[in-house]
Amino acid sequence: MNYNKITIADGARAELHDSLKLTGAEISVNVLPAGGGVPFVHSHKQNEEIYAVLEGRGTALIDGERVDLKANDWLRISPSAKRQIFAAADKPLKYLCIQVKENSLEGYTLTDAVL
Amino acid sequence: MNYNKITIADGARAELHDSLKLTGAEISVNVLPAGGGVPFVHSHKQNEEIYAVLEGRGTALIDGERVDLKANDWLRISPSAKRQIFAAADKPLKYLCIQVKENSLEGYTLTDAVL
Repeated sequence: MNYNKITIADGARAELHDSLKLTGAEISVNVLPAGGGVPFVHSHKQNEEIYAVLEGRGTALIDGERVDLKANDWLRISPSAKRQIFAAADKPLKYLCIQVKENSLEGYTLTDAVL
Repeated sequence: MNYNKITIADGARAELHDSLKLTGAEISVNVLPAGGGVPFVHSHKQNEEIYAVLEGRGTALIDGERVDLKANDWLRISPSAKRQIFAAADKPLKYLCIQVKENSLEGYTLTDAVL
């Protein structure tokens, strides 16, 4: 199959690897309620994580450093960094988390495209 | 540096690889005006592309097949597929395009995370 398409219900949490048949990334769509947070700190063995904030406000704690988050913010976090994500007290936080293997990208855009 | 953060201006087009210091993906934030489209067909040598529709409606032409797009839709397109993206006649299309090397992901989530 040369493509797959799925539709995510508005406001739903979803992990896309299996449903989209991804082979180069895992992507999750996440919504933390106001005052909520991911209940654990984690790091990664191999994967760079990229966070895209779609709506709301929140905070990332990265190796103990507090990083404010709002819509249109993007974060890249190195595999070994310890991270935890929280929504603001008064607003839900909707964000994407994209996992890719660190240093796996070779060419891209002009060097990978065929016109 | 264990992380990088950037903020994209609302409605702006942006390519994130260099500004976010990405090593496993290239990501672009795109806005096509109503009636507009990417002016060329392209495919890729190595990279899987993942499209996330954030706002609006449009169409992807994939190997000549017409695929309707609306907010909350996600598409995975194989490297060799010929693709072209269009906004609907009456609505702009805001979308992300994520390029990753096909088959580059090894572990993820539970098999790559360290708690």
